Amino acid sequence: MRRMIDVQNIEDIALGAAVLGTGGGGDPYIGKLMAAEAIRQNGPVELVSVDEMGDDDMSVAIAMMGAPTVMVEKMPGGTEAVSAFNAVQSYVGKPIKYIYSIEAGGINSTIPIALAAKMRLPLVDLDGMGRAFPEIQMVTQSLFGITAHPFTMADEKGNSVVLSTIDNRWMETFARGIAVNMGATTIIGAYPASGKQQKEAAVHGTMSFAETIGRTIREARAAHVDVIRALKDVTKGYVIFHGKLTDVQRKTVAGFARGEALLEGIGEDAGSTMRIQFQNENLMAEKNGTIIASVPDLITMVEEDTGEPLTTEQLRYGFRVMVLAMPAHHHWRTPKALEVVGPRYFGYDIDYSPIDERL
Amino acid sequence: MRRMIDVQNIEDIALGAAVLGTGGGGDPYIGKLMAAEAIRQNGPVELVSVDEMGDDDMSVAIAMMGAPTVMVEKMPGGTEAVSAFNAVQSYVGKPIKYIYSIEAGGINSTIPIALAAKMRLPLVDLDGMGRAFPEIQMVTQSLFGITAHPFTMADEKGNSVVLSTIDNRWMETFARGIAVNMGATTIIGAYPASGKQQKEAAVHGTMSFAETIGRTIREARAAHVDVIRALKDVTKGYVIFHGKLTDVQRKTVAGFARGEALLEGIGEDAGSTMRIQFQNENLMAEKNGTIIASVPDLITMVEEDTGEPLTTEQLRYGFRVMVLAMPAHHHWRTPKALEVVGPRYFGYDIDYSPIDERL
Repeated sequence: MRRMIDVQNIEDIALGAAVLGTGGGGDPYIGKLMAAEAIRQNGPVELVSVDEMGDDDMSVAIAMMGAPTVMVEKMPGGTEAVSAFNAVQSYVGKPIKYIYSIEAGGINSTIPIALAAKMRLPLVDLDGMGRAFPEIQMVTQSLFGITAHPFTMADEKGNSVVLSTIDNRWMETFARGIAVNMGATTIIGAYPASGKQQKEAAVHGTMSFAETIGRTIREARAAHVDVIRALKDVTKGYVIFHGKLTDVQRKTVAGFARGEALLEGIGEDAGSTMRIQFQNENLMAEKNGTIIASVPDLITMVEEDTGEPLTTEQLRYGFRVMVLAMPAHHHWRTPKALEVVGPRYFGYDIDYSPIDERL
Repeated sequence: MRRMIDVQNIEDIALGAAVLGTGGGGDPYIGKLMAAEAIRQNGPVELVSVDEMGDDDMSVAIAMMGAPTVMVEKMPGGTEAVSAFNAVQSYVGKPIKYIYSIEAGGINSTIPIALAAKMRLPLVDLDGMGRAFPEIQMVTQSLFGITAHPFTMADEKGNSVVLSTIDNRWMETFARGIAVNMGATTIIGAYPASGKQQKEAAVHGTMSFAETIGRTIREARAAHVDVIRALKDVTKGYVIFHGKLTDVQRKTVAGFARGEALLEGIGEDAGSTMRIQFQNENLMAEKNGTIIASVPDLITMVEEDTGEPLTTEQLRYGFRVMVLAMPAHHHWRTPKALEVVGPRYFGYDIDYSPIDERL
């Protein structure tokens, strides 16, 4: 189903993507501004479902790469995205007809909308994660043999890079170092994929899912109904903790924002504690010292009253939050996928246990 | 004047280039083996003077990049150089007809010969330094507005990178990080330049100069005449110290071999000390605490009897050496050039004073 994304829809998409962003992906506010401005200048963007892509039609992902803590202070100008797109185009044999979002989280849900408006190309209703993840190879496209290259990077100074690597894990290594040298954040063009490939490999419907989540929050607030309950229902998620932030530690290491948040229980959870560890995104939630949710399932902190999703860089002492855990897309739950995004990849010596089987 | 380089000539070129290499550029032995093997398989390589290049003929530099301490243990296979060449070719509008050496020092004097043999292309008798230097932007081509890009890097695993930057200093930043991630050493293709550009910007005759130096050492040894004196004459250099190595410190930092060598005087220099600081290449020589030679002039340690040039990674306690200082090419002696390769660039708070004016 084709339809147009306008400035109104962007608000909802950005809000919903921040829920799917699991604390990472950067402040959605910046991407929202960019997308809204691009639509004001160029008109609305067409959103098409993956089924509408011809099997041979090519699409490319446009994203911001780097530590979100830096993104907040360094807003991209917009020409970098065009450069990154054109660089990929110069390597792909046929015209690239579609733009897509590699991750639903935060700024990367809306940066592609801004470019789609500017290039007057449609956006495909899918992403490569159904959430946000910190590393380049962590996309469902990787699991189906789609390569990240030609992978292009551009900065606001005019530097550009094209990388081709033997696998997508090497791409992460090279690109991360360059992103750090580009000032810790950069625009990338990557994972060119045909309609046929996207039908098999992508997480479908993510953009409209994000919009539905955002709209649900907005409408629940307007109607003064329980926004947390509405959020739980629409995401098929679980409230795993209700608490107050007592400590947040974060540092930017090798281009990532790493750290942890500590919470003290409120209400039903009074007397309990929770520790949430993150690397750009929330990875692991421990209640009273026991892990109760982990990647690839989604862990998101939202404000207890408004349901407003919080990025890790927004966390402050005293915030009262609900911690939501939501099931990962089924592509992420295979043994092969868990090698890429499971707890052990991130250094936790535990097996993944799906949130919908735990609770 | 056109002529052919065969396996015999490579011995002399490698030996002479190690003198010009000022302690850096990697062990010439590896490059020599590669070049000799390529010539055995493909026949001799034609060496042409820059005047024989048509003004519009294109040439490209092929080199190894990384810490020479690692190069010793990680010999390239040869396919990387072909990949790097082809990647540059794909960006240059016309056929690249010539290969050249970006630095006369060590391995990078002979790696281009190996590729020239393999590709059956002539080598131009020039380089970009007249010596070796540690960073990418430190080539005379830079001083004349020639850009390093399209700059390509390839590793033995099959990864490849193409960089385009706003200036050659940024190229150094990005490429250094990638070289470290490629395992601290990689083959690059860079600085494509026309005959017209090379006539103005390159250091001319470097390959034959290296060969002359190497032949001079070889013949002096065979004739049992004073090899140090012969070396001094052919290089227009000065013997600035005669001493014994008492301490060598080196570490690999951010893709560079950094360190210093301490010497105790022998003979005429008995009672004196010398300290030589290096970053891949020897940068600075202090006698009794006073700087007496510095970049961009060439500082090379050779064995006192054989005149064998020593790379910084070959230095060992007890070695008895002569320290030679040789004048830099005039391209390096302008105020603009000294900003790129003068003592202050390397962190020494002194003005450059040409060796031929000091002594």
